[in-house]
Amino acid sequence: MDEAQALLTPEAGETTTPLRVALLGCGVVGSQVARMILSRADDVAARVGRPVELAGIAVAHPDRPRARLPQDLFTADAEALVARDDVDIVVEVIGGIEPAYPLIMSAIEHGSSVVTANKALLAAHGHEIYAAADVHGVDVYYEAAVAGAIPIVRPLRESLVGDEIRRVMGIVNGTTNYILDKMTSEGVDFETALAEAQRLGYAESDPTADVEGYDAAAKAAILASLAFHTRIRGSQVHREGITGITPEDIEAARGMGCVIKLLAICEMEPEGVSARVHPALVPEDHPLGGIRGANNAIFVEAREAGHLMFMGPGAGGSPTASAVMGDLVTVARNRARGVAGPAQAIFGDVPVAEMGTVHTRFQLSIQVRDEPGILQQVAAIFASHGVSLQTVQQSALEGAGKEDGWSATLRMVLHETRESDFETCLDELTRSPIVNGQPRFIRVEGM
Amino acid sequence: MDEAQALLTPEAGETTTPLRVALLGCGVVGSQVARMILSRADDVAARVGRPVELAGIAVAHPDRPRARLPQDLFTADAEALVARDDVDIVVEVIGGIEPAYPLIMSAIEHGSSVVTANKALLAAHGHEIYAAADVHGVDVYYEAAVAGAIPIVRPLRESLVGDEIRRVMGIVNGTTNYILDKMTSEGVDFETALAEAQRLGYAESDPTADVEGYDAAAKAAILASLAFHTRIRGSQVHREGITGITPEDIEAARGMGCVIKLLAICEMEPEGVSARVHPALVPEDHPLGGIRGANNAIFVEAREAGHLMFMGPGAGGSPTASAVMGDLVTVARNRARGVAGPAQAIFGDVPVAEMGTVHTRFQLSIQVRDEPGILQQVAAIFASHGVSLQTVQQSALEGAGKEDGWSATLRMVLHETRESDFETCLDELTRSPIVNGQPRFIRVEGM
Repeated sequence: MDEAQALLTPEAGETTTPLRVALLGCGVVGSQVARMILSRADDVAARVGRPVELAGIAVAHPDRPRARLPQDLFTADAEALVARDDVDIVVEVIGGIEPAYPLIMSAIEHGSSVVTANKALLAAHGHEIYAAADVHGVDVYYEAAVAGAIPIVRPLRESLVGDEIRRVMGIVNGTTNYILDKMTSEGVDFETALAEAQRLGYAESDPTADVEGYDAAAKAAILASLAFHTRIRGSQVHREGITGITPEDIEAARGMGCVIKLLAICEMEPEGVSARVHPALVPEDHPLGGIRGANNAIFVEAREAGHLMFMGPGAGGSPTASAVMGDLVTVARNRARGVAGPAQAIFGDVPVAEMGTVHTRFQLSIQVRDEPGILQQVAAIFASHGVSLQTVQQSALEGAGKEDGWSATLRMVLHETRESDFETCLDELTRSPIVNGQPRFIRVEGM
Repeated sequence: MDEAQALLTPEAGETTTPLRVALLGCGVVGSQVARMILSRADDVAARVGRPVELAGIAVAHPDRPRARLPQDLFTADAEALVARDDVDIVVEVIGGIEPAYPLIMSAIEHGSSVVTANKALLAAHGHEIYAAADVHGVDVYYEAAVAGAIPIVRPLRESLVGDEIRRVMGIVNGTTNYILDKMTSEGVDFETALAEAQRLGYAESDPTADVEGYDAAAKAAILASLAFHTRIRGSQVHREGITGITPEDIEAARGMGCVIKLLAICEMEPEGVSARVHPALVPEDHPLGGIRGANNAIFVEAREAGHLMFMGPGAGGSPTASAVMGDLVTVARNRARGVAGPAQAIFGDVPVAEMGTVHTRFQLSIQVRDEPGILQQVAAIFASHGVSLQTVQQSALEGAGKEDGWSATLRMVLHETRESDFETCLDELTRSPIVNGQPRFIRVEGM
């Protein structure tokens, strides 16, 4: 075997020639990765079996001074850096599609292994990247792309690969969890909680990607692809954000022993794989109900393993850098021995279930008159579409509408129902003269 | 690269010749693994890139009929099975040291990769096994050996390998967690809870390995070796069981907002690696405080990643089989491509810290007379050894001793202290005329 190994990579078995890393991007995560490569060099060399060193760092402004990082490593020419013959591994922490996508493809074509934290790119073009990596016999690792430092990619890709995963349900966006947690613990409205998140650096000045669920949808696409060995893109994920959540919604959730969380849910439905991101009621005593602040958590249901949960910090420079470094050491170990990790693109093409075919549970609130027979009429609408009620609670209406005789709120929890049947009921209720205004609804999970 | 790859393993790239598995043991876990290999054959082949099939199953009584498993697979001759030329992978689920140890060594020497769930063996002889695997270029995977289906070996070995782990603290024995949880929720004593655990199959008829902490100590040795890249054996783990825990201890814990858990703790101390298993007070609102029933959970503190937690079912046939299958697929993937996973034996030899040098916190209860100056005398004993008190609570003594004037219980929580200093204080208190009988103490974690 040793002879063939020697043919495979002239360097295999050799322990002193450094493996060289091109770092693309040097923001919060990138600068932390660069410093860890430098400061933990001895430990990394011990783990890899060969030294690992920085070949260069590509940034927009190479002349800007950077604390504790040698100025001569910096370059503005990322294309030239990834094309260099002395680069073995490319670490991409620029984010976004351009120029990260062509740079990663170029790195792979030049025979470099790739470590990336770029969920938006993987959700859009991951499958092209994995296929190219397999063709060129290099690694692409991306533990940092989902849930920061929480190991979830390897557990799905390796630990649970002999099992049958049924469902992955997670809090995968720290910004929105911080906002919802703040609204829950302090009773403030969305705008106030968002402003506080921005002040603390948990939310960006344009918070759209987080609060509208785009970031979570990208992660859901990656998780669904891994869990169900298929190709799901971010654009195929059903997505609802949290901007419409009010303090009244949070209060009503509390009345049911629940909190509101923005969830990414991937599951196998009869019609195919469902991947969706939306706010949902979660019982306070469910493992996901207790996740506070900007933390992330992922709950996995597998046929044999049962229920597993992984939790920890979901974002931030240090946790993300930790995940990138774990991948870098793994990829470097493989390089040092002239091998690549598990193939990436051994995927099928499981159909994606349309949201209308998915089975979920809803909580629904409507304003009605406090008159005999009203509940019966509401129940008849549900029954005519095969939707059944689990609980109904009537309370006196507070605020607008009361003076016009809309004196009661009916709050109902439905049994699991097909989304399209629920939509039909919702339409009928909205058009019905017995209901005032627009019904309010939210999905229910983990109950 | 393809030419060299072809040289490396004549079969690489080839997708139809099955990889063949020898299964050693066919109890609760083994029979489940065998059934999964048969029933999930298509999925496993898709993940591996080649079919995986059973070459044989070694058991003590091959003639005993087994549901849904072909009789002709069974053999009593495990030695001959692992030596067969047509075996690629050996899965060992016999447990214990003999005959598992020589069989695994023989498998490695015959060029087979190994998957094992055997924590006792790995804690005793893991380092010899890992070294042999590296010499022969084969894999040894053992995710099922610690915390059942919860992925913790891969996260420590790969995901967090670029970070610096400071502490691993876990509930790694489901039996004792079930017993302590039962004592907490129902107020029953140890013997009653143990009998219930035995009735439900959570505890064996001889429960020593679980309740005296031997099982947890083996897992602590494996976790400490992985977390700190060193060689710790089970015999080097400080070990205390839960047989002495009384309903009064549980009640006193509750009074402090705590529960009692049997913890496995691995941490880097100034004097070296400390690995220990003992019961401890844990705050109810600590992530480990909420782990119920026979579940397991592992809390990891890393320098960059921060606090991570992994939880799920820690034992049982199906979860353990899931972990074994994940390893089997990973090892088979490596085989199919003619490579091995990360080397096992890239360990240093970090010294093991003597328990006396470790820094922990204690809660301590003593019986005293309710007289002026007593607390001062107690405090003086602590002060003379540099041990400082965090809280002191005096309550009227109930029960024995009261009629002799030992009318008060002093319950103290100490600040973190060196174990040997605490021992000295404990000795002095025990010998002191102001203290009645033996002080009771328990360590405090996560507060």
